[in-house]
Amino acid sequence: MKSILSIGATSALCASFLFGATGNDLVKKALDSGLKPIPTGNELKKLTGLDKATKAQIELGKKLYFDPRISGSNLISCNTCHNLGLGGTDVVPAAIGHKWTPNPSHLNSPTVYNSVFNSSQFWDGRSAHLQDQAKGPIQSAPEMNADPKIVLAKIQSIPAYVTEFKKAYGNNVKIDFDLVADTIAIFEKTLVTPSRYDDFLRGNTKALSKDEQEGLNIFIDKGCIACHTDINLGGTLQPLGVAKEYKFASVGGFKGDANGMVKTPTLRNILETMPYFHNGQYWDVKDAIKEMASIQLGDEISDEDVKKIETFFNSLTGTKPEIIYPMLPAQSIDTPKPKFD
Amino acid sequence: MKSILSIGATSALCASFLFGATGNDLVKKALDSGLKPIPTGNELKKLTGLDKATKAQIELGKKLYFDPRISGSNLISCNTCHNLGLGGTDVVPAAIGHKWTPNPSHLNSPTVYNSVFNSSQFWDGRSAHLQDQAKGPIQSAPEMNADPKIVLAKIQSIPAYVTEFKKAYGNNVKIDFDLVADTIAIFEKTLVTPSRYDDFLRGNTKALSKDEQEGLNIFIDKGCIACHTDINLGGTLQPLGVAKEYKFASVGGFKGDANGMVKTPTLRNILETMPYFHNGQYWDVKDAIKEMASIQLGDEISDEDVKKIETFFNSLTGTKPEIIYPMLPAQSIDTPKPKFD
Repeated sequence: MKSILSIGATSALCASFLFGATGNDLVKKALDSGLKPIPTGNELKKLTGLDKATKAQIELGKKLYFDPRISGSNLISCNTCHNLGLGGTDVVPAAIGHKWTPNPSHLNSPTVYNSVFNSSQFWDGRSAHLQDQAKGPIQSAPEMNADPKIVLAKIQSIPAYVTEFKKAYGNNVKIDFDLVADTIAIFEKTLVTPSRYDDFLRGNTKALSKDEQEGLNIFIDKGCIACHTDINLGGTLQPLGVAKEYKFASVGGFKGDANGMVKTPTLRNILETMPYFHNGQYWDVKDAIKEMASIQLGDEISDEDVKKIETFFNSLTGTKPEIIYPMLPAQSIDTPKPKFD
Repeated sequence: MKSILSIGATSALCASFLFGATGNDLVKKALDSGLKPIPTGNELKKLTGLDKATKAQIELGKKLYFDPRISGSNLISCNTCHNLGLGGTDVVPAAIGHKWTPNPSHLNSPTVYNSVFNSSQFWDGRSAHLQDQAKGPIQSAPEMNADPKIVLAKIQSIPAYVTEFKKAYGNNVKIDFDLVADTIAIFEKTLVTPSRYDDFLRGNTKALSKDEQEGLNIFIDKGCIACHTDINLGGTLQPLGVAKEYKFASVGGFKGDANGMVKTPTLRNILETMPYFHNGQYWDVKDAIKEMASIQLGDEISDEDVKKIETFFNSLTGTKPEIIYPMLPAQSIDTPKPKFD
């Protein structure tokens, strides 16, 4: 008996060595390593803050999110750079804004999907939450280039918007720039995309194929989960270039926050949100995986392992919420006119 | 009896003189003058050509319409200038395209809604139909600036697009630029917006308020229907500046077609599609009505009549089709990259 058990144990060890954990063992390993599924039901509402939001607020937030009149030129909406049809991003290396200006630090637009799960917002994490984040690009000269006073004057001059703010916040609502940003953020909090990966982490071991499980196992074993962790497989500030300098560090010259920390992007929907890295220098996710392994882990990872991790990424493509395209209220003769310079 | 009848007739004449036709008389007058409701059911399908279209074609057309990767830069979609949330237009005087370039003739983006009812497309009517129109802005350097070969290479490199073309047109489909434009046009043909005005023309005399009916009556009596006629209250080529030169004729220098003819814009949803005229010089529809009466009819129309015509325009704001925002297929590593210069 003893020798059979011993052979069994050796065999399990070999299988683990060759293929890593699978099935329930892999679920446990993933959860133990810090990965978490997107919660559901009331837990999700509480985590995102949507337990306090009303349907009227979400609908109004959606309109503001899609309304290009929130920009100085009437041409750029939140959805321009965070396009909900394109994985919540714009599929260009650096965001292009007002007057066709590329982002001054050549920064790539991060996806808005699941951004509520990030522990901070922007590549340097300078906003603690989406409400604060939303105020940035609206005002930024190379992005939407809007004076908050003009944004408010536009909204106040559009009767149907005023009515909707009253519906959302009561008749005595004071429409200010913070409330506009808060309302946009409420809509953004609905943009979560659960996938087969979440089913797997909740114990449905058939939700991921054998190859995807193998990729997840490598992803954990290699140490990618040191930064790509928690619900979003990312979303916290981390040092970039731990083992080696990032090959394209000079493009745009972005240095991260005061301590040189850079926000780890979520890997959810990663196969839809090329190009990669904060300055969008890699179009092929395989190249991005290789570069990350090299500069963060000092690991010249094999093509085979890269391919397996990419296969695992398929399981992170989530189901997007159905968005009925909003019909935006007509403006009045008092609405401030667009400015293009 | 005879004198009573005579008094009755005189009284009817007076009422007609003071208030014009109303109710069923006005319906008859409108139809006799050439105005027509948007047809319904099979009649509409036949008129628009949708009787030959499949659901798969319409859905694919919607994706292409919303996909900014159809432009050279990946930044501009059909919906950028013909925004379905903004009355099918962009609410700026002149369209702004690639590299933030204003339309060289300072032309205003016409609404895509109901454009299928126009007898020709573009302000100079140079396209006979939407299939031909769609090919223009995609290629135009100051608009979407895309080489048709690159558009096709992008589509061919996106596996889900190829699958959808096969679903729409059969496994042997040859995806060429004409077919891309045709497919976009099929979606555009669904963008019709029936309103209370159509109910009225079909005999529901309560569909328009008394004031709106008075406005419609003035609209007919003044002669606006000479150009703003048929289903779209517009959509055919007409001379501009019949009685007097258009005040802002020099802005952009647009001269119409070879014979100086300009496409009359539809008045459907006109209260959502400011600014007005081919070069977008009037933001207040009242000013546009005055200018039109002056330069086309030689009529210095009273403020009161202008106000009544504006009131009538309310009835032309139609019900928009519900659009579920399309999730666009992810590109591959073979997809041509965006170009910004």
